[in-house]
Amino acid sequence: MKRVSIGIDIGGTNTAIGVVDSEGNVLYERKPQMPTPQKMENPHMTQTVSDKIVSKYVSDLTKEIKNAIEMVKQINPQIEVMGIGIGAPNANYYTGTIEYAPNLPFVGVVNFASLINNNFPEFKFVKLTNDANAAALGEMIYGGAKGMRNFAMMTIGTGLGSGLIVNGDLVYGSDGFAGECGHVTVVPEGRLCGCGGHGHLEAYCSATGIKRTVYELLAKYNPSECPLSNIPMSEMSSKIVFDAAEKGDPIAKEVFQITGEILGRALADTVHYLSPEAIFLFGGAAAAGDYIFKPTKESMERHLMPVFRNKVKILPSELKESSAAILGASALVWKEIEKNKV
Amino acid sequence: MKRVSIGIDIGGTNTAIGVVDSEGNVLYERKPQMPTPQKMENPHMTQTVSDKIVSKYVSDLTKEIKNAIEMVKQINPQIEVMGIGIGAPNANYYTGTIEYAPNLPFVGVVNFASLINNNFPEFKFVKLTNDANAAALGEMIYGGAKGMRNFAMMTIGTGLGSGLIVNGDLVYGSDGFAGECGHVTVVPEGRLCGCGGHGHLEAYCSATGIKRTVYELLAKYNPSECPLSNIPMSEMSSKIVFDAAEKGDPIAKEVFQITGEILGRALADTVHYLSPEAIFLFGGAAAAGDYIFKPTKESMERHLMPVFRNKVKILPSELKESSAAILGASALVWKEIEKNKV
Repeated sequence: MKRVSIGIDIGGTNTAIGVVDSEGNVLYERKPQMPTPQKMENPHMTQTVSDKIVSKYVSDLTKEIKNAIEMVKQINPQIEVMGIGIGAPNANYYTGTIEYAPNLPFVGVVNFASLINNNFPEFKFVKLTNDANAAALGEMIYGGAKGMRNFAMMTIGTGLGSGLIVNGDLVYGSDGFAGECGHVTVVPEGRLCGCGGHGHLEAYCSATGIKRTVYELLAKYNPSECPLSNIPMSEMSSKIVFDAAEKGDPIAKEVFQITGEILGRALADTVHYLSPEAIFLFGGAAAAGDYIFKPTKESMERHLMPVFRNKVKILPSELKESSAAILGASALVWKEIEKNKV
Repeated sequence: MKRVSIGIDIGGTNTAIGVVDSEGNVLYERKPQMPTPQKMENPHMTQTVSDKIVSKYVSDLTKEIKNAIEMVKQINPQIEVMGIGIGAPNANYYTGTIEYAPNLPFVGVVNFASLINNNFPEFKFVKLTNDANAAALGEMIYGGAKGMRNFAMMTIGTGLGSGLIVNGDLVYGSDGFAGECGHVTVVPEGRLCGCGGHGHLEAYCSATGIKRTVYELLAKYNPSECPLSNIPMSEMSSKIVFDAAEKGDPIAKEVFQITGEILGRALADTVHYLSPEAIFLFGGAAAAGDYIFKPTKESMERHLMPVFRNKVKILPSELKESSAAILGASALVWKEIEKNKV
């Protein structure tokens, strides 16, 4: 029998579903992705409405999972499904619940893992965590962190998520929600963060943060010739800044310099906390390569205590971006198998 | 047989030695403490000189340990010594070495645990870690953190040390040196830290940091009547600031307010990293009670993401300050016994 794991990633817009073997080969992936139920205009969601939405979503997801297993069995009848790993916003690993997720049309605390498990009682492991934690597990099981016992994963997209691995295990903390490095303060009384706080890492070192830094510098310099000054904020992206930097635009270059300076200082703090072997960067902003890695590494080293210098690697994630969400989620299952020695 | 553990704390001036049972009763403590070998004026220490100093120190320490065991056996012949735990600066738990300790007359890397273990081959556990990590273990084994699986210990003295417990175990990181929260950046480009960095937590939230804040405020306000303005910096202490605050001095009160504001913000970051059940404060500055706990708690809550609010306790350490160093060091042994199921 060939063991496989099912990975599900619940995004704000779509839900990715796939079947993965223990080497990280994606044997099946639903294409196009399944739509995630959307928040309605009316902000007064009741519990009853929420329950109905959850029930319909779980039922749709169950059909899709059964279909995914069917598809894989057609190719190889000798597969054994070991469980389901789910990446979701505001997911609590300990309880299997999704709690007060601001971008999902769910009210309060939803027992998501149980609801799925009820439809698949034959699976021993149905586990839930947030997408950055899942990415860290994916890196450890299939990617560049194989064999590492202490490392950190920073997922840099619209926001900044993190997954921390200590002694070979994810740090979930006392309540299941640890590893929110996007919300550490890097500039006291600084930029407003999406969470309502101020000066958080995510407000500087994310695609959104990069965008904000562009306009901060445009305001500072009021340049007469800068390709970035022709683009409204609503259309700005890391890719546009990257292209401008490639063409030699000094403001675009300074944007990455500033982003790396702040990110490197924050990663030095990560090292002071956890002394990881490596820190992985994942996501769109990390794709800017040396523009982001070089100033980040320089700043991190400059901000480290001597004992930690020239020890900690900053590496690009080795997970393929297109299937990373499914890989990360599916890795939850292999981690449970390892923990429970099944 | 009654199981006991030997705790040794190597301070810059003195070395504390004691024998402790598994309930945290100190059965014997050497008084006065044994002097720690001192750095000589001549900064050009050679390896040979260092080796001689280490050898003499290990030999003296061995005699003291044998004497301690003898003293305890005279009271209760039925004791079984389970091992030796040592708290030391720049101590590496993994390797049992003391590495490049700036305040000890040792050159390079000293295999301290092995040297001691050679003289006590009958002991299974001779373990080494830094004093803040030892304090965290002490709190977990004997103190207020009994039964907690995730918590942080901040030792606030001349500097600020920390010990982090994740999933019931100390975080040592990839190299044995994790948990240096005193050196995270809290004020970018801020005060010079003892380590050579800038704006570190230790430069603000320690006895030294409190002293520096006093003179920052005196410079800011140039008050006509403030008891603190009569005292030179070399004589200032947290106790003097505490006494002035008790008498209603507004500057002394503001010093604690500022210290708590910065400490609370840093502890919010600790929560964002690790989501601990509680954070313990230990040491002289923590003895200022509400003057430090109240603004710290308020600031921490204000800087937390909503999901973490009103969950994390900030508590005074329950270890008695006079024997805390010995208790912490001795706790290393009980932790090894637990890990190795002996």
